[in-house]
Amino acid sequence: MELGFFDGEFISMEERRVQLEDRGYQFGDGIYEATHVYNGKCFALDRHLARCRRSLRELRIPITYMDEELIAIHEDLIKKSGIKNGVIYFQITRGVAKRSHAFPESVVPLLSMTIRESKTNTKWQAEGISCTLFEDIRWLRCDIKTLNLLGNVLAKQASHDKNLQGTIQYRKDTNLITEGSSSNFFVVKDGVIWTHPISNLILKGVTRSILVEEIIPKLGYTLVEKAFSPEFARYADEAFATSTSLEVTPVVSLDGTTIGDGKPGEITKALLASYHELVKKECGALS
Amino acid sequence: MELGFFDGEFISMEERRVQLEDRGYQFGDGIYEATHVYNGKCFALDRHLARCRRSLRELRIPITYMDEELIAIHEDLIKKSGIKNGVIYFQITRGVAKRSHAFPESVVPLLSMTIRESKTNTKWQAEGISCTLFEDIRWLRCDIKTLNLLGNVLAKQASHDKNLQGTIQYRKDTNLITEGSSSNFFVVKDGVIWTHPISNLILKGVTRSILVEEIIPKLGYTLVEKAFSPEFARYADEAFATSTSLEVTPVVSLDGTTIGDGKPGEITKALLASYHELVKKECGALS
Repeated sequence: MELGFFDGEFISMEERRVQLEDRGYQFGDGIYEATHVYNGKCFALDRHLARCRRSLRELRIPITYMDEELIAIHEDLIKKSGIKNGVIYFQITRGVAKRSHAFPESVVPLLSMTIRESKTNTKWQAEGISCTLFEDIRWLRCDIKTLNLLGNVLAKQASHDKNLQGTIQYRKDTNLITEGSSSNFFVVKDGVIWTHPISNLILKGVTRSILVEEIIPKLGYTLVEKAFSPEFARYADEAFATSTSLEVTPVVSLDGTTIGDGKPGEITKALLASYHELVKKECGALS
Repeated sequence: MELGFFDGEFISMEERRVQLEDRGYQFGDGIYEATHVYNGKCFALDRHLARCRRSLRELRIPITYMDEELIAIHEDLIKKSGIKNGVIYFQITRGVAKRSHAFPESVVPLLSMTIRESKTNTKWQAEGISCTLFEDIRWLRCDIKTLNLLGNVLAKQASHDKNLQGTIQYRKDTNLITEGSSSNFFVVKDGVIWTHPISNLILKGVTRSILVEEIIPKLGYTLVEKAFSPEFARYADEAFATSTSLEVTPVVSLDGTTIGDGKPGEITKALLASYHELVKKECGALS
């Protein structure tokens, strides 16, 4: 059963709780996180909460929820909903104030959350997905996980319009790939794994961090955090996208060009298997 | 008395009507307009409605309100609120749908509106305002009047932090001024009026259009729609910002440099006077 939470209360998903002048509604003035629930447990919640705090700091939204509270609400949502496998989404907006661009003088941030069943797309993981290329037109603070998502929405829609499964974005001024519409993007060339470095142009994905900090060193692969062009990606041996929902999903075609032999690559498969091991270790089971 | 409107009903400003999964709340997926009410009448509403339709088209949000309906709701808000001088704000979001980036298959756009008293800052118009310079970090579709306003919010906040009245943004890659945080920006140099041309980097402001299409030709001034640097602006003879709420407001200092003699310029004053004439003609009085 899907369930919602708003400003201290558990509510049905359809309940009407938000005011017109919530700055989240009029300015997209807030941040969010989405965590994968496996076997009734949140995976990597500590990393999501750390990123949430950073996003709030960058937007100068006061922190009014302690990690312990947020963890407790995550656990309550799982319990009350009875959901074993799903996604918990939460957002914190700056709060309700008379509409004016600058930060209001006194305002209380508002937390809302939802839990819903969802399953990893194992077909995509087994066969790989085809992606389109799309110009990255987003703002220059993509490192903050904000509610200003129209650039991401339009990017994702570009793949839907072409009946493809994903979108990889590139900056026109530099001709360099940044990331997916809601994922980080990696390629493998001559045994070396490449991905865009941490900067203002990409989100530091939780799955990306787990790969970069834990899995890739453990498996002994070489990683280069360096931006690359769409042409470089097209002629890579392997490619994959990472996110909380995609985990590690092979990309077997980019903008009409088959990558490698069109099948998920060996390194990609090893990374996904290792990621699943981590999930099992932390959550007890994969589903 | 301030008043709200949501999805067909007049409501109090504080009423809770919006659902958590309104795409306006989770993605900033919507557009808005704000119209100035003088003497109980909306000024230049036709121009605002035309821009609203364009914004919806660009985001592929279906148009489900005819102009006649929107005009009628504007008039009802004025009547029911009893407000003679104020601002009517409205936004249209893509609607409520299970959270997923791409456009939902079937979804009904949601209109919300507010009316509130407000007065033009005549002190600012008489004395001019001081502005800070701030890097324009917004996305590359600033021509659409969307709810993704965090870039504008941070820009505006930069002037508040310095106790200044406004912010003028410039693109770092080109060192060219684009516009204010919620206004268009003009300078006057050697009798010629300069402003950024219409492009993806600025909003085509209604006040800007009225100046460019009606007032400047009528007064016989020369206009150059061409981008200029912060240095050019600092050493201009006059500068001013235009918006629905600012009308034509002189800028007498930019990033610490006094512009001209630090007083509102003659051309600026002539443009404002002519703008007020237009308002009086359309609305019967200035207040």
